[in-house]
Amino acid sequence: MQYKHNPKYLQSVEFDLSKLSISSDLTEIIANTEIVIIANPAAFLTKTFEHLPKGLLKDKIVFSAVKGIIPETNLIPAEFIHQSFQVPFSNIGIICGPCHAEEVAMERLSYLTIGCSTPEFATEIANALACRYIKTTISDDLIGAEISAVLKNVYALAAGICSGLGYGDNFQAVLISNAIQEIERFIDVVSPIHRDTKSSAYLGDLLVTAYSNFSRNRTFGFMIGKGYSVKSAQLEMNMIAEGYFATKCLMEMNKNYQVEMPILTAVNNILYERISPIMEIRILSDKLS
Amino acid sequence: MQYKHNPKYLQSVEFDLSKLSISSDLTEIIANTEIVIIANPAAFLTKTFEHLPKGLLKDKIVFSAVKGIIPETNLIPAEFIHQSFQVPFSNIGIICGPCHAEEVAMERLSYLTIGCSTPEFATEIANALACRYIKTTISDDLIGAEISAVLKNVYALAAGICSGLGYGDNFQAVLISNAIQEIERFIDVVSPIHRDTKSSAYLGDLLVTAYSNFSRNRTFGFMIGKGYSVKSAQLEMNMIAEGYFATKCLMEMNKNYQVEMPILTAVNNILYERISPIMEIRILSDKLS
Repeated sequence: MQYKHNPKYLQSVEFDLSKLSISSDLTEIIANTEIVIIANPAAFLTKTFEHLPKGLLKDKIVFSAVKGIIPETNLIPAEFIHQSFQVPFSNIGIICGPCHAEEVAMERLSYLTIGCSTPEFATEIANALACRYIKTTISDDLIGAEISAVLKNVYALAAGICSGLGYGDNFQAVLISNAIQEIERFIDVVSPIHRDTKSSAYLGDLLVTAYSNFSRNRTFGFMIGKGYSVKSAQLEMNMIAEGYFATKCLMEMNKNYQVEMPILTAVNNILYERISPIMEIRILSDKLS
Repeated sequence: MQYKHNPKYLQSVEFDLSKLSISSDLTEIIANTEIVIIANPAAFLTKTFEHLPKGLLKDKIVFSAVKGIIPETNLIPAEFIHQSFQVPFSNIGIICGPCHAEEVAMERLSYLTIGCSTPEFATEIANALACRYIKTTISDDLIGAEISAVLKNVYALAAGICSGLGYGDNFQAVLISNAIQEIERFIDVVSPIHRDTKSSAYLGDLLVTAYSNFSRNRTFGFMIGKGYSVKSAQLEMNMIAEGYFATKCLMEMNKNYQVEMPILTAVNNILYERISPIMEIRILSDKLS
């Protein structure tokens, strides 16, 4: 607070302290607000919220910018908020990309999709977040957009693996085309509402992650493709790629749905079943078109 | 022929002369074949074929690997073949990417989609072209796939312009998501059959062109975004980007259909109406979501 920036991430961004009231006392902060935006990693969500009073979030509007699945319970953030704090789904929303934080920090024009089944809440958040370099649109697809945001990390990881193995741009384009179809197949089963997965919140988010140099998941996959073990890739990167955990959680989730997901399965086989990336991607390549 | 390679393009590829019978006498070559694959630039199609006997192609199966619109007539290659040589559409097919020739030459795994309204012909060509590093699928969407292959060059050019102007990956992802929707809107009007534009032949082809370093259209657009004039960008590149001509032809074509195509229109304004790229892309950015 003293230095007006976060000392660990995006240090160059200076905060306007006159507009902020910063505290580490979550109960107090939440009690005094109407709208809560949660933006910490999925892996720490349970820990962050476990000691809070159960009724604390009940009448709040809660938006999640968390991308990932909560490892302890295999829940997406919206489900976690709903189950842990009895917040009705109509009061829960999601903030989706395509958006690398690094580019937002550089004030490069970026688009956010605000998903909530209550359009007024989506509009309120969309208006609040829009600025010179942020454009916002709204969507009613809370669950689909949230799952898509998790799945894209797995496909970015897959893209990295293939790139590390020496596959080229032609193959990458086929992989990503199949990935967005795999996303659609899955979310259409989990939450069957009308949606166009070619929209920015789905396809755009997949593209920005799978094709970008900022992507941790792609980098992690690239190292796996180059022959690093999972352990040594993690040590080398000094951070953990969300897609690594997401893969396991999504495989678990899909046990209930049995959707055909060849790319997810291939990544799972490589990361958790110790099957050689060369073999696994060769097998996968016969399933793509 | 003497040196077993093309002296101008992809020189490192050596031809197996025992399998080829090479001639510059098109009439003779075509008269003695059942299947004709046409693979020269759209700009030279009229000139190449204008002196051939009108009945020459009539009973042939004709596949086009041409990507572009014939400038003299604003026709896509399938229409040109149909109109110039009375070949029925059922005998005409298209070979689609996503496929940079450079990567095929390096024997990197690539996928082709073979489009023809007669499935047996599509299958025959698909089988003939498949090999260790080429996988093929078939489609019945001759017209849609062909137009999509032309449009993608325009969007690659747009991606280059934005990149040259300093827009980042976040914006690029939004642009491409909107581009595939624009492709779908247009071809669904021009040729209303069932198709999934998330397939490799559409989305994949768009991705490989818009995101790849091999793309001439992207490079051309990048120079325009950096402030080069059309003329100087063309001189500098020493080759002409197909998307430059395609833009004009497609705008012309869309006069009949009146489909909403903001990205195509923006590129047209920049290339042909001399509107500043900065201004035009700023206006475009308000139309994307």
